[in-house]
Amino acid sequence: MSHIPLETHLPGITGLLEYRQDSAAPIRELTQILLRGESTLTEGERELIASLVSSRNQCKFCTAAHTAAADILLGESTTCELVKQDFETAPVSDKMKALLAIAAFVQENGKKVTPESINHAKNSGATDREIHDTVLIAALFCLYNKYVDGLATVTPTDSLFYEKLGDRITTVGYNRLPGGYDQLKK
Amino acid sequence: MSHIPLETHLPGITGLLEYRQDSAAPIRELTQILLRGESTLTEGERELIASLVSSRNQCKFCTAAHTAAADILLGESTTCELVKQDFETAPVSDKMKALLAIAAFVQENGKKVTPESINHAKNSGATDREIHDTVLIAALFCLYNKYVDGLATVTPTDSLFYEKLGDRITTVGYNRLPGGYDQLKK
Repeated sequence: MSHIPLETHLPGITGLLEYRQDSAAPIRELTQILLRGESTLTEGERELIASLVSSRNQCKFCTAAHTAAADILLGESTTCELVKQDFETAPVSDKMKALLAIAAFVQENGKKVTPESINHAKNSGATDREIHDTVLIAALFCLYNKYVDGLATVTPTDSLFYEKLGDRITTVGYNRLPGGYDQLKK
Repeated sequence: MSHIPLETHLPGITGLLEYRQDSAAPIRELTQILLRGESTLTEGERELIASLVSSRNQCKFCTAAHTAAADILLGESTTCELVKQDFETAPVSDKMKALLAIAAFVQENGKKVTPESINHAKNSGATDREIHDTVLIAALFCLYNKYVDGLATVTPTDSLFYEKLGDRITTVGYNRLPGGYDQLKK
């Protein structure tokens, strides 16, 4: 049971975003800009960063939701699974490995990001903007993970829920629709 | 030196918020809503949460900036210092101690927030909304701390800088002014 009363049909982040819609609006907007806005990183690559950070924070809801999104965007479910297990050996580009390493440091503490890890990313072709966005996406998912788990929101065990949520955030995106998440009602 | 090129006269978060203004806008808006918007927690109490979390994340820039803000809002500098040292014995209400304990758990990991810590906060007079906001403010400052340190932004050592920044965020608030942070130029 969640620590504060939330709509029972809205698990994880969905109930929180409806609970306080005024603070939810900029959270949604920031996510839409970073994960769906113009970028030289693909939407799938950005969802891999979200999935890795959520997995390292052991946030089951966010990990499942963003893994579902990454899988849809990449067209397969192997890459995200391997990224979460060990991104160094996962089938992603050297640039993505270097960016995922930075994201993993940020998940621990921003101070862990070393000049060496930044140089490695730059030498692998990462731009300043890609490095910036990787750090901010990793920081944003730490916010989400702490928000979702800090209020003990419900984590559905039904994989169908995450498939529907993944479909929602890869088609509609992160902005609110009229009626909130009513389309996720069973 | 920061990991990406930022305006040299804009240390800490200030250079990052100017670097990518489109993603900065919702971050600023969220902060303004949570720290300056309508709330049964005072602005000073909310800045104490920000200061405690930043201190626990060892983010020197954010700790100094929000300590300066808390000190201005509280009219003295003892309380914030004692909250950072040991909030359990600091001169704040029992409700604030219970909320600061929740914030401290969120800083570590959302899962650390126990039903006991929530019940203790409720028994000390905290509302659901205050608990919600405490968790989200703590999560937001983890984002800030990771963003600021993850890109190795510059931390001024001159206390005058933080006094000016504290004055700025307790009078103007967190929204952007035309010209950005030009008023912080020496």
